Formats: sequence, C-alpha cells, structure tokens
Amino acid sequence: MATDRPAVTISAIAAAAGVSAPTVSRVLNGRGDVAPTTRERVEALLREHGYRRRGAPARQSVGLVDLVFNDLDSPWAVELIRGVEDAAHAAGSGTVVSAVHREARSARLWLDNVRSRASDGVILVTTDLDPALQDELRELGLPRVVVDPAGVPALDAPTIGATNWAGGLSATEHLIRLGHRRIGFVAGRPELWCSRARLDGYRAGLETAGLTFDPELVMPGEFDYESGFRGGERLFALPDPPSAVFAASDQMALGVYEALRRRGLRVPDDVSVVGFDDLPEARWSSPPLTTVRQPMAEMGRLAVRTLHRLVRGEEVDSPRVELATELVIRDSTAPRGR
Amino acid sequence: MATDRPAVTISAIAAAAGVSAPTVSRVLNGRGDVAPTTRERVEALLREHGYRRRGAPARQSVGLVDLVFNDLDSPWAVELIRGVEDAAHAAGSGTVVSAVHREARSARLWLDNVRSRASDGVILVTTDLDPALQDELRELGLPRVVVDPAGVPALDAPTIGATNWAGGLSATEHLIRLGHRRIGFVAGRPELWCSRARLDGYRAGLETAGLTFDPELVMPGEFDYESGFRGGERLFALPDPPSAVFAASDQMALGVYEALRRRGLRVPDDVSVVGFDDLPEARWSSPPLTTVRQPMAEMGRLAVRTLHRLVRGEEVDSPRVELATELVIRDSTAPRGR
Repeated sequence: MATDRPAVTISAIAAAAGVSAPTVSRVLNGRGDVAPTTRERVEALLREHGYRRRGAPARQSVGLVDLVFNDLDSPWAVELIRGVEDAAHAAGSGTVVSAVHREARSARLWLDNVRSRASDGVILVTTDLDPALQDELRELGLPRVVVDPAGVPALDAPTIGATNWAGGLSATEHLIRLGHRRIGFVAGRPELWCSRARLDGYRAGLETAGLTFDPELVMPGEFDYESGFRGGERLFALPDPPSAVFAASDQMALGVYEALRRRGLRVPDDVSVVGFDDLPEARWSSPPLTTVRQPMAEMGRLAVRTLHRLVRGEEVDSPRVELATELVIRDSTAPRGR
Repeated sequence: MATDRPAVTISAIAAAAGVSAPTVSRVLNGRGDVAPTTRERVEALLREHGYRRRGAPARQSVGLVDLVFNDLDSPWAVELIRGVEDAAHAAGSGTVVSAVHREARSARLWLDNVRSRASDGVILVTTDLDPALQDELRELGLPRVVVDPAGVPALDAPTIGATNWAGGLSATEHLIRLGHRRIGFVAGRPELWCSRARLDGYRAGLETAGLTFDPELVMPGEFDYESGFRGGERLFALPDPPSAVFAASDQMALGVYEALRRRGLRVPDDVSVVGFDDLPEARWSSPPLTTVRQPMAEMGRLAVRTLHRLVRGEEVDSPRVELATELVIRDSTAPRGR
C-alpha cells in the first residue's frame, strides 16, 4: 500500500525516465504512440513510485461518461448503451449518449459540448472521427476507450472488441457437423477487419474439415438487410446452390430468409441459415435464428470499467481486449436433408 | 416585447392572483394539479406582466437533459433515444440516458446523481416511478416531460403520446378493405391505456363495416414475442380460425408469424398479419410486416422542445399531446384468398 507516501508527480516520473511529461501522460492513458522500451521504463517508474493519478482538477470525477456513436441506428447500439449505462449507473455516473452522424459539424458541436460541461472520459463506438477532431479530443486530455465491434485497427486508445475469427469458425463448424458441404457466405463491409476475420474463420472451418473453399459461394455484403437479400438471391440463382448459408450479420441473415421465402424455399427444411451478432431480432425471427453472439452489453460494461481505471490513473491490463463470441443454436439450422 | 420591463417575480404573480408561489410554479411547469380557474387567472397575470422565467440559478442551462427509462430493452428505446439525442444535440445539450429497472434502489441512485451533477430537466419514459421518488423529483424543481407510448394516465407533467385508437382503426380498416371478415386481435398489456385504445380502434373498425365484434377472436397479450406466439397458436386452433390477425405490437406480430410457420401456414398467402409500432424489425421480417407506425423519434424530439420551453419558463401548448400514427403497408397483408 502506498497511500501514506507523498504523491509523486508526472513531472518527477518524466524527469526520472528522461522523457517529456506528455509522454508519461500517454503511457498513463494507455495510448499506442509510445515506443515499447519507453513505455516499459515509464511503467516501471510509475509502479516503483506507487503513482496514482489523483487530485488534478480535470480528473476530479464529474460523474459523467460520454458514449459517442456515429449513428444510433446501428441495431446493436441499444445493447451497447445498455451495458455502458448499467456499469456507469452502478458507479454513480450518468451516461451521455451522442451521435455524430459522420459529420464534422456534428462532431464539432459534440466536442464543444464536452468541453463546456466536462466529462470523466469518452467511450467512442467508432474510430473514424475526423482526424482533426481526434487530435482535439486528445488535447482535451480526456481518457478514451474505443468499443469496436468492427475491429477497425487505428487505435491510440485501449480498444474492446469481440473474437470475430473464432465466431466465424464456430458457425461454419456447426453447419459442417450437420452434414452441410456446400456452405454459402455473405460477407460484411470489406473495409472492416471484422469482416475479414469472419471470412477467414469460415474458410478455416471449411479447410479443417477437408472441404474446398469456393469463392463462387462468397457474396459481397454491407452488413445490412438489403445486401443480405441480394447475396441470398445470387446464391440461390447458382446452378449448384448451397444447402446452408452463413451471413456475417443477423440483418443479412434476415435478408437471406426473405430471398429464400420469395423462392418458396424454407428455413431450415430446405436451407440452413446462421447469422452473426445475436441481436434481439434473431430471437424474434421466424424461425428463430441460429447465430454467433457478440457480447455487446459486456463490451459496454468493460469499456466503463476500463475508462474508470484510466480516470484513476491505473494501468489497463491490455490495450486490446477481445471478448469471446458464442454460437447460439436456435431453429434455423438442421441436418442436411438434400 | 417586454424585454425592457423590470422582471416580475413569481411571488408578485402569486400575490396578485391570491395563490401561493408553489401554485404559480405548478402553472409554469404545465402541471395538471391546479384548478382550471386558478390556472386561467395565473396565466392571465403571467401574460399581462410578460413573465419570463429566467436568471434563477437552477434554471441556468447546464447543457444536459436526462432521459430516464424503466428498461433499455424495450425495443423502441433506441428510437426514442435517437429523437431525443437529435433535438438535444442540435440545441447544444447532452443527453444522459438512464434505466431505473423498476427498482427503488436504482431510481434512488439516479436521483442522487441528478442532484449532484445538475440537469436542465428530465424526460421520463414511464410514469411508474415510486411515488416517494416522484415527490422528491418534484421537489428538485426540475422541469419534467413524460414520453408515454403506453398512455399511462397519471400525469402531473406534460405528456407526449401517440394516437393509439386511430392506429387500431386504420389497421382494421386496411384488413377489411382487403376482404377479410374474420380478423383476430392479439391485445397488449391490459393495465395500459394504449392497449385499450388499440382494441377499441379495432372494434370501431369492425362495427363501422357492419361486422360483429367476436370476443372469441381477441387474445390476451403482453406486447412481447412469446405472448404473440401463444395468441397465434390459440387463434389457429379455433374451429373457425381468422383469415387475418392484427397484433397490438410488432413483437407480437412476429410471434404470430412463428405460430403460423409451425402450422405450415404462410404470410400473407394463407393469413394476413398487421403489427403496431414500426420497429426496425418490421422491415426485416420475412415477409416485411405491414404495421402502424408510432413516431417514436418525433415524440423524442418534441419532448426535448417541450422541456426547453419549460426551462425557459414558457407555456406549453397543451399538457397532453398525441402524435399521429400511420399505417405502413408492406408484404404481410393481401386480399383474402380463402
């Protein structure tokens, strides 16, 4: 316990480490833009001196956490809000929810608001804020955590994601165990890492089972209902259509349902379908959808806990955490009957 | 314009009206617990003296609006958050989202938070806060608006709802125009006024068309998927089942879909289905669901505008506003083919 020791300052740590004070702050904030050897040296000194960031006016808790989305119409937004609100509320904090709509003007307004009312820190559900605004946010000196179901890899703050590759693998293995050999895939937005990871998991599942990866069975998608519908239409217009489809989002899986319904094909009697996300819609679809669960609420709760560690000046365990996905088997998958 | 006049105080208005200062505050806050004649007298004096509530420390805008739900798993929660965030953001306010989980302890914690951080006002998406907490919230003196998709009628603050009766009527008329004569109804939670209003709209639609209201075709429900499923099961186990079903929520309509699917019946070929709410799920169901749209985002935006009027000490147009519902025709309804 170091509670009786005189508090050590960031400047003292910086002097001892032979770096600038902002560099020590970057280490404290868990950022990635510090050379590994520097980080180690600073962290050793912080531990040695029992440093706890406290008492600085900007770090006095104001009991507010900012949660920032690009848009609130992402279907998993409410799940995340639920997790963040739950953990923040329990810690006596309010959760300020904002949407910046991928617009510089809107993000600008949000930054001005944050500046004037103060906040303990920011949970960003995206990393594609305008770079100038990112810089400004950094200069505000607020602790930041990125919740990142998309796995976008541009991170100078701790991030919390999900195991997309393992999820893709488990969905594919499930279909293979049911006897399916021709398994279609409807992919997510190609610019996002999570899409690539899910595709690679699918491919790994096929190849581990000795099946050939057939690019003809991979359809492009954008995560939304419409692209799932189009992907389904194309898969079932093939001369040798698949007996099962793995869609990289629940919304796309529901689009595949609709494409099958229009062709008079039934789920799961004629075709098995697996989604990804486990949105509430997955339970309410007809038939209820087998899917890979992303623990969005847990990700939100972990984001708050991580943010509070940063606020207290504590280290985060890892700058990049991926929570486990889980296959949820419902009624949209059945043994291959063809 | 009264800007150059010396500011008149609440006490002066109270003295002139022969009432207490708290009564004048109640009028200013648009509350219902003031006798109509008293309200008129006070409002006349407020107008006459050009009263604008301003400058009081508690009313200095802090740029935060509190939005309080019982639970964030109501499927329309995100739609409301979207509307509130949109209007608040544009007005330079942050939106603090909380869920009190119908628990006194949780509501207590939220009240303590609000008290310590201050807020311009509160939008309650429920009225069933514990009475003791309601009183305390009243004593905090924060302007309050109730957004009330359920139409719960216990209101001492302005409320914003939707036209549930007219929505029930339009859904029923749509099915009748398609030739349906036996139309089942799956009802919402019986203790809520919105459920009664939707049922009465359904009944009015039948009777206006000269059809008999048959209680055998009305199934109890709780607004959720499971009770919709049970209602559907019971309707299609009847000796003379209906050719169409109107469910008082989208989630129940999706439960009806599943009950039909399990019996090998198809929507809309065998049975037409109409929902209520127009959640995103309605668009993504298979087939896409015909439903009655509740303008949740608009209700949220109006709640913010009403709250800001109260904050500025302005009158609200009406203590009870209902926004129009609208029938959205998709693919789950078709002419009766039996």
